[in-house]
Amino acid sequence: MTSKQATAGVVSREQLTALTVDALCALGLNRSDATDAATILVLADLFGLRTHGTSRIESYGERLRIGGINPTPSFNVEQVAPALYRLDGDNGVGPLVGFRALEVAMKAARSNGIACVFVRGSNHFGPVSPYSYIAAQQGFASIIGSNATTTIAPWGGTDARLGNSPVGFGVPNPDGRPFILDMAISVAARAKIRNALKRGESIPSTWATDAHGKPTTDPKAALDGFLLPIGGHKGYGLALIVDLLAGLLSGAAYLTHVKSWVDDPEQPQNLGHFYILIDTAKLGNSEWLASRMTDYAAILHGSAPADPDAPVLVPGEIELNQYDRQLAEGINIGAEQLAMLEATAVGKF
Amino acid sequence: MTSKQATAGVVSREQLTALTVDALCALGLNRSDATDAATILVLADLFGLRTHGTSRIESYGERLRIGGINPTPSFNVEQVAPALYRLDGDNGVGPLVGFRALEVAMKAARSNGIACVFVRGSNHFGPVSPYSYIAAQQGFASIIGSNATTTIAPWGGTDARLGNSPVGFGVPNPDGRPFILDMAISVAARAKIRNALKRGESIPSTWATDAHGKPTTDPKAALDGFLLPIGGHKGYGLALIVDLLAGLLSGAAYLTHVKSWVDDPEQPQNLGHFYILIDTAKLGNSEWLASRMTDYAAILHGSAPADPDAPVLVPGEIELNQYDRQLAEGINIGAEQLAMLEATAVGKF
Repeated sequence: MTSKQATAGVVSREQLTALTVDALCALGLNRSDATDAATILVLADLFGLRTHGTSRIESYGERLRIGGINPTPSFNVEQVAPALYRLDGDNGVGPLVGFRALEVAMKAARSNGIACVFVRGSNHFGPVSPYSYIAAQQGFASIIGSNATTTIAPWGGTDARLGNSPVGFGVPNPDGRPFILDMAISVAARAKIRNALKRGESIPSTWATDAHGKPTTDPKAALDGFLLPIGGHKGYGLALIVDLLAGLLSGAAYLTHVKSWVDDPEQPQNLGHFYILIDTAKLGNSEWLASRMTDYAAILHGSAPADPDAPVLVPGEIELNQYDRQLAEGINIGAEQLAMLEATAVGKF
Repeated sequence: MTSKQATAGVVSREQLTALTVDALCALGLNRSDATDAATILVLADLFGLRTHGTSRIESYGERLRIGGINPTPSFNVEQVAPALYRLDGDNGVGPLVGFRALEVAMKAARSNGIACVFVRGSNHFGPVSPYSYIAAQQGFASIIGSNATTTIAPWGGTDARLGNSPVGFGVPNPDGRPFILDMAISVAARAKIRNALKRGESIPSTWATDAHGKPTTDPKAALDGFLLPIGGHKGYGLALIVDLLAGLLSGAAYLTHVKSWVDDPEQPQNLGHFYILIDTAKLGNSEWLASRMTDYAAILHGSAPADPDAPVLVPGEIELNQYDRQLAEGINIGAEQLAMLEATAVGKF
């Protein structure tokens, strides 16, 4: 790494991976576990999802050091039916638990055509798109989700009782880019509201309510209140089904039973995830799938844009463009984050 | 049926079922097929979803009579992997194809823990909630979807290239009401826009665009334009993944390849569906599931409502309340629809 790169906070994939593995090892993980967790976090950075990538080593580290996350988990994988599994993450680091669950799901879907792994005893597992991407590269369509700390009120209610329910979907394209959709159920992330507050701007009334459940344009009131789901009662329902699969059916915590990362850092969160994978190779050969997926993207791209400078996109394009660019030019994680990772890697917490 | 009931258009479940079966038989279906299709449509009416219930016999009938739907389909079911199936509906009536696909999916999920049936060669299959409900009564959690005629522009685009992508989810509760979520991806249905036009009212700017892709409050311009998805690019992505599963992976038509029901009534639509079912009995016993589901509903109901007259609901409650009430008091389908069914049942088209 040249001094110029280090100053700018631009690193290669190999450098970032090595640094992340070292940091996780310094926090108590063994090298194999650290490597698996790093795969997810580095992919997040490659996709440009910096808030959900290696920057999280800082908050993961805080909880690892006070025993809120188990650095040396023993996973328990239980096959409850030919294509259905339960995995207990033993309160391990989320991206590690998630990576191992994905591996189980891919193997089971290869054998059965479709498979599901329900995960309990986990933590924040990063963004969904790295998992969807890895699955798509191996030919699997996927539906993957997690529950989360409560930030959303039930539709019509007045206190936070469900999480933002991140969920993602992927469909492979053997000849080109997979379809990758990674979303939370709120209209906007809390980070966007915090940014509006910093800039002294108001927010659209569709983003959040105040503490009394009334829609607000004041970012400060919104941060004391609750995020609003997309489509009102529809998004409320979507957030619930993600939580029902990831939390209730998995055997993990759900709704208000999920422990707050911030308020109870030393308590296991018992977050849950689900991985539903479908082996597309069983449905047709790769020429069949490639030709349909290429046609699919062409139909979407062919719609004349309402704004000539904003052509229609297929979900995943922004992230995959970032991936290609950053793989070639280096990953920009910023000087501050690089310094945090370097310090953590040598045990300076 | 008393004369008073008949006048009011209120019928019992048995009466409505018999009438629907007779109507479908008069349109060329055999009695067994007609009975399966009627199960879905009558459940829709019981749930209060009248636009998607037996009222559809009229439009199904139009297409059956001109050969746009095949009254005597031969289903081809192909097991491509232990838990993965492809079903060709041979252009049969949608609720019949859907009912048979659901049966295949339930049997396969019972054996494998999870199963998926991809359906092609189908038509409008009614609402999703009857399928989710039947599955939930048998202990299956479900993710079920269909593609549809194009009514939505790609996000940022200016012409209709994707459908409203109805999708539904269910989770059983052995001791009480299942969770049932049935939704289309648009903020509002076209029927709501037509109603606003009839009443001379404007519509919220979030419902639809005009023909140039610009958001509009004019219901007439909206009907010439396109429905808007919930959450902007998020709903656009959700509509796409439903179409990718229901249409692209199933081997059915997708996006603009779906033939218009209105413009090409004599052409097979080649709609597709997908049924992903999970056998919850493999995850824990019924006491375990019942206690978690009851707790789940209690947590949601426990949120103090922002409007004291509008308590927080669990998705499915409105439909299941209607179900209970109409099972006891009779199903109100209206005198006009009752007359249509009675005429169809005796071959007066």
